[in-house]
Amino acid sequence: MTLYVQKFGGTSVGTPERIENVADIVKATREKGIDVVVVVSAMSGETNRLIDLAGQIQARPNKRELDVLLSTGEQVTIALLAMALEKRGCPARSYTGWQVPMRTDSAFGKARIEDIDDTRMRADLRAGRVVVVAGFQGVDENGNITTLGRGGSDTSAVALGAALKVDECQIYTDVDGVYTTDPRVVPRARRLERITFEEMLEMASLGSKILQIRAVEFAGKYNVPLRVKSTFDVDNPGTLISYEEQEMEHALISGIAFNRDEAQLTVAGVPDQPGIAYRILGAVADANIEVDMIVQNVAVESGKADFTFTVHRNDYESTLELVRKVGEELGARSVEGNDRIVKLSLVGVGMRSHAGIASRMFEALSGEGINILMISTSEIKISVVIEEKYLELGVRALHTEFGLDAPDESAAAMAESSAD
Amino acid sequence: MTLYVQKFGGTSVGTPERIENVADIVKATREKGIDVVVVVSAMSGETNRLIDLAGQIQARPNKRELDVLLSTGEQVTIALLAMALEKRGCPARSYTGWQVPMRTDSAFGKARIEDIDDTRMRADLRAGRVVVVAGFQGVDENGNITTLGRGGSDTSAVALGAALKVDECQIYTDVDGVYTTDPRVVPRARRLERITFEEMLEMASLGSKILQIRAVEFAGKYNVPLRVKSTFDVDNPGTLISYEEQEMEHALISGIAFNRDEAQLTVAGVPDQPGIAYRILGAVADANIEVDMIVQNVAVESGKADFTFTVHRNDYESTLELVRKVGEELGARSVEGNDRIVKLSLVGVGMRSHAGIASRMFEALSGEGINILMISTSEIKISVVIEEKYLELGVRALHTEFGLDAPDESAAAMAESSAD
Repeated sequence: MTLYVQKFGGTSVGTPERIENVADIVKATREKGIDVVVVVSAMSGETNRLIDLAGQIQARPNKRELDVLLSTGEQVTIALLAMALEKRGCPARSYTGWQVPMRTDSAFGKARIEDIDDTRMRADLRAGRVVVVAGFQGVDENGNITTLGRGGSDTSAVALGAALKVDECQIYTDVDGVYTTDPRVVPRARRLERITFEEMLEMASLGSKILQIRAVEFAGKYNVPLRVKSTFDVDNPGTLISYEEQEMEHALISGIAFNRDEAQLTVAGVPDQPGIAYRILGAVADANIEVDMIVQNVAVESGKADFTFTVHRNDYESTLELVRKVGEELGARSVEGNDRIVKLSLVGVGMRSHAGIASRMFEALSGEGINILMISTSEIKISVVIEEKYLELGVRALHTEFGLDAPDESAAAMAESSAD
Repeated sequence: MTLYVQKFGGTSVGTPERIENVADIVKATREKGIDVVVVVSAMSGETNRLIDLAGQIQARPNKRELDVLLSTGEQVTIALLAMALEKRGCPARSYTGWQVPMRTDSAFGKARIEDIDDTRMRADLRAGRVVVVAGFQGVDENGNITTLGRGGSDTSAVALGAALKVDECQIYTDVDGVYTTDPRVVPRARRLERITFEEMLEMASLGSKILQIRAVEFAGKYNVPLRVKSTFDVDNPGTLISYEEQEMEHALISGIAFNRDEAQLTVAGVPDQPGIAYRILGAVADANIEVDMIVQNVAVESGKADFTFTVHRNDYESTLELVRKVGEELGARSVEGNDRIVKLSLVGVGMRSHAGIASRMFEALSGEGINILMISTSEIKISVVIEEKYLELGVRALHTEFGLDAPDESAAAMAESSAD
């Protein structure tokens, strides 16, 4: 028998009325002869309400107790959803994390799932019941309640999908799938029918709004096919995230991701010696600043190197100050920075087997008069840094260049409205 | 080492600020060298909020799922209280019903406690921690969450007190103890220092506002001394409810209870034959109407009996209709009723060994021109039914007659304000 995990986030279960809607979706799935394990988040706003309560008691709440508190959010939702299913004549039973049990380590607030016992769930499924599981939570070996951290319900869903070897793990959310790029920037952006786990990870800057990166990694590791679907447009098939299959027809490029939150720093004219990169980045890492892209090139004549990297825009000022000091110590020619830049990435497993993607990309950008400030490549991604003001122009140019535009405006308009 | 259970109801933990106040009380107890297991209810209003949510989904919510839902209320409180204790440098650990575990049967919504495992709690107490337990909830043998029903937190506290053989089970509430009678009726009502379990049960109509009857029975059965105290006036010793002790000095009468919700029915002139009482009361019981007092007397001359009983005032009309029919079948002379009556009870273990209490009572009432409509006695209680309009007059007369009045007006005024 076909078995799905269906996961519904906070917005999808935000009111009793929406919980009824979710029950309708689950019931419709059951009526197709598909067994269902549902995973739900806390009703939207509930987790923040609880965090606020804790904050009124203790500025930095005790971590064990915060998990006891927060786990009530999902517990409320599972009970209400099970009631809504029972009301529909659809037998259901709810389970908290400890009832499953979903065993985790003891890292309160960011626990990792270690083991899932599927005995009770299997028995319920055999008895024709829908199993409703609280996402985001588990229990450690000492019987303490744990939570998985923000977005942990996605991880719960994927872990259950792996443990139960489901045919599909469906993530219902408020968008109807993964798009070739952000429809707010490119009105003709298209919803992707399929995308690989690797591409989804590289599309992080778009995808993270839809799915927790950790959940995608987990799904890839255990080969759990993920489908992103809209709670409010259930007939839409959404986007399937899975492994590349032999017979899979692949577009050269799956999508274009971009990130507005970047800032770039360059230390120019430093001696090309071992340890230089460490001297510069070590200081940054020590200050707990995360570095994204890193590029180094050497001017052969002078034997001097230029070292460029990007950080989150919020860290720009403090990084610049740090790096100026290090640059001085290293006798750098100059230290420069720019916080009005963006990163723009072409993503596609198709580019593995096709040369010339990079040059087509650079040509398309230069055709629009866009200067490239930095380049970095991986096996299935090419990222460039450009000036912020060119972001929309650049994304649209590449979207058209690589044949991603939707066939007509009406379809695109539809896509846009449902993705907002 | 001395060990207390301290139980705090919904009003006592109604806001983060009040939870801080509870933490202060617990900490102060710890500082006296007393070990503490705290039992808490849901924050006031929370249980109703959850019931309302369930009601929006399902008119008669699935009982298993309702328990999953409602048990989150106390879970929120235990986490917040443990945080507040930790903040005060008072190590604490919270436990839900299943974490204790507190084993119950599977009667969702009205489960009975079967067994309490004290292993974890003992280990925490040995380690110098305060144990904070969620009241009102447990877990059945299949790992399902159960709740004990309204007021179940009192029962949880007493059951923990019995399992841990505590020196005292303190019930903190918004009144400062048990009174000789309702201070709103008798301004000179006094707080009782001590009262026996039996008296407390007989005082039900007053006491039930303070303590669940079921919890008092339980405490009596397992001999757990109960102390009712005010959360908002901790220096007040409250009232100790325990077994009568040899050396205990006993007032003749402990208090005067009354009940405004009664209605009286009389079937007059029925044949004095076996089965008559059953014919009348059987019909009432079949209609699921609860009967309180029952009195029957026989007029020797005529061989006819008069049969009188009381029911809740809400059931008066339907009972009257029923009994009129039965009366006709039995050939009764008349069927009469009165729903403007009240029951008034004198309670005290002291009356066991003292004759003449009843006659003093009747005399005091007749001295005020109050006619007695019905009399019923038990070993430690004498109840009379009188017309409703005489309630206050009657209670005050008896309160004075049996020496229950507070010595002066100022003390009484204080008592009144704190009991409101």
